[in-house]
Amino acid sequence: MTGKIDFEDRNGQLAILEKSGWHHDEDRDAISRSYRFANFSEAFAFMVRVALVAEKLNHHPEWKNVYNRVDVTLTTHSTGGLTSLDFRLAGRMDRLAGIGS
Amino acid sequence: MTGKIDFEDRNGQLAILEKSGWHHDEDRDAISRSYRFANFSEAFAFMVRVALVAEKLNHHPEWKNVYNRVDVTLTTHSTGGLTSLDFRLAGRMDRLAGIGS
Repeated sequence: MTGKIDFEDRNGQLAILEKSGWHHDEDRDAISRSYRFANFSEAFAFMVRVALVAEKLNHHPEWKNVYNRVDVTLTTHSTGGLTSLDFRLAGRMDRLAGIGS
Repeated sequence: MTGKIDFEDRNGQLAILEKSGWHHDEDRDAISRSYRFANFSEAFAFMVRVALVAEKLNHHPEWKNVYNRVDVTLTTHSTGGLTSLDFRLAGRMDRLAGIGS
């Protein structure tokens, strides 16, 4: 579950995420995106919900918050690249932000 | 309360913060530091407590979290440099992290 995923799966999932606003950093093999909210309170409420998911998955984002903006980068440090955990967390974050299904 | 503070006050407060681990970025006129915690749960608990203070002060940090690390930068965007709000928030953050009095 936490290993690198196979090439086709990975490219399919990357394509879906790129359509919804994620970017793939090939050098780091990481995905990143920026979320914007109405204000700090809404941005931080999102972060609290993501924190609960991240702790449950035992997989945590790199993220930066400036007022209403949350910039996120996901990769699996132990593996040195994207794993299924990154794709799961990305999907959960988008849903919590009201993006996608 | 939110204006730039006078030169002597400011230098005195900067000196105190630099002793406790803050760094002054002269180009941005901002202060920054890094906090480390035992794990993500403790780092994020700190962030939740700081978020409540920040919202009450209506003054918010730029901050980045990677697992157990929280990197913070404080400045007052509307003024383009440090104000008393930055010094207040810095002191509150240190106390919440168990640094200083």
